[in-house]
Amino acid sequence: MGRWEPDAAGRLREAAMALYAERGYDGTTVAEIADRAGVTARTFFRHFADKREVLFAGSELLGQDMAAALAAAPADASPMEAVTAAVLASAEFFDDLRRDYSRRRAAVIASTPELRERELIKMASMTTSLTDGLLARGVAPDVAALAAETGVAVFRVSFERWIAAPDDVPIADVIRSTLKTLSALTA
Amino acid sequence: MGRWEPDAAGRLREAAMALYAERGYDGTTVAEIADRAGVTARTFFRHFADKREVLFAGSELLGQDMAAALAAAPADASPMEAVTAAVLASAEFFDDLRRDYSRRRAAVIASTPELRERELIKMASMTTSLTDGLLARGVAPDVAALAAETGVAVFRVSFERWIAAPDDVPIADVIRSTLKTLSALTA
Repeated sequence: MGRWEPDAAGRLREAAMALYAERGYDGTTVAEIADRAGVTARTFFRHFADKREVLFAGSELLGQDMAAALAAAPADASPMEAVTAAVLASAEFFDDLRRDYSRRRAAVIASTPELRERELIKMASMTTSLTDGLLARGVAPDVAALAAETGVAVFRVSFERWIAAPDDVPIADVIRSTLKTLSALTA
Repeated sequence: MGRWEPDAAGRLREAAMALYAERGYDGTTVAEIADRAGVTARTFFRHFADKREVLFAGSELLGQDMAAALAAAPADASPMEAVTAAVLASAEFFDDLRRDYSRRRAAVIASTPELRERELIKMASMTTSLTDGLLARGVAPDVAALAAETGVAVFRVSFERWIAAPDDVPIADVIRSTLKTLSALTA
C-alpha cells in the first residue's frame, strides 16, 4: 500500500466508530478497522497506537488548543476570563461537522468501563494543563487549581448538554449558558 | 485465629500504609500486610477485597456521608447550599486524627498510576451520587450536574490544601475559604 491515502486517519476513525457501534468496542479488532477503512494494519499503526487511541487522539489536540487559548488571553484577564477563553476554544474543535461523531463517540465511551476511565484521565490532564497555564500567568496556586477544576466542570457539563441539544445549537452558546448558571449558583 | 481481634481493619490499614511507604505499593503483598498487622491473610480478606481496597474502602463511607448530608439539607436550600452541606460533611470524616493518614495515603496514590486512576473513578462516582441527590431534590438536570461537579471541585481543591496546611487548620475552614474563592472567581 505505497500509494497515496487521502485522510487515512479520518477514514480509520469513521471505520472504528461504525464497528464499535455494530460489534461493540471489545468485539472489534485493529485488523477489522483497517480492513473497513481500506488500509493495511501497518497504516493503522502509523496513525494510532491502538484501537483505544482512535477515540482519544482528538482529546490531545483539544487540550493543546485550550492551553494555547489560555496562554493567549490578554495579560489583564482575570483567572476565570482566561479559563473561559480556553473553554470557548473548544468551540472551534466541536463544530457542526463533529457533532454526530461526538455523539457516537460518547455512546461508545459510556458503554465501556475501560474507555470511561480513559476519558477521566484525559479530563484530569486537561485540568492539570489549565492549572499549569494559570500558574504561568502568575495566578496563585490555590486559585489556579480551583479555576482550572471549575473550567473543566463547565466544559464537561456543556459538552453533555451540547450532544443532547438540537442540531442547530452551537457549543459556544451552551458554554455561555453554563457559565451563567455557574455565576447564579455560586453568587 | 479464632480469637477476638480489636480493630483488625484499622491495624491492617496502618500496616498497609507503612509497607507502601517502605517498599512501594507494587512491592507489597497482602500476605506481608496481614503479617505486619499480626493477622492471617484470611482476616485481611474478611475486611478488604485486595490491597488496593485498603486505600479506598474509606472513600465509600465518605461518599455515603456526603450523600446523606445532601439529602438532609433543608427543603428550601439552594442547590449550592445543599452541595455545600455535602462537602462540609467531609469534615466529620477528615478530623485531626485522620490528617496524618490522609497525607500518607495521598503520597502513595500520587506515586502509583493505577491508584491515581482509581481515585479519579471514586471522584467521578462522588459527582454522580451528588447529581442524583440533587435530582431527587427536584433540581433541574443541567443545574444538578454543574452544582455536583463544582462541589467535587471544591472538595478536591480543599482536600489538597488541607493536607498541605499546618496541623491546626481544620478542613471545614479550608472548605469555607475555597467556597469564598469560588464566588469571587465566578462573580
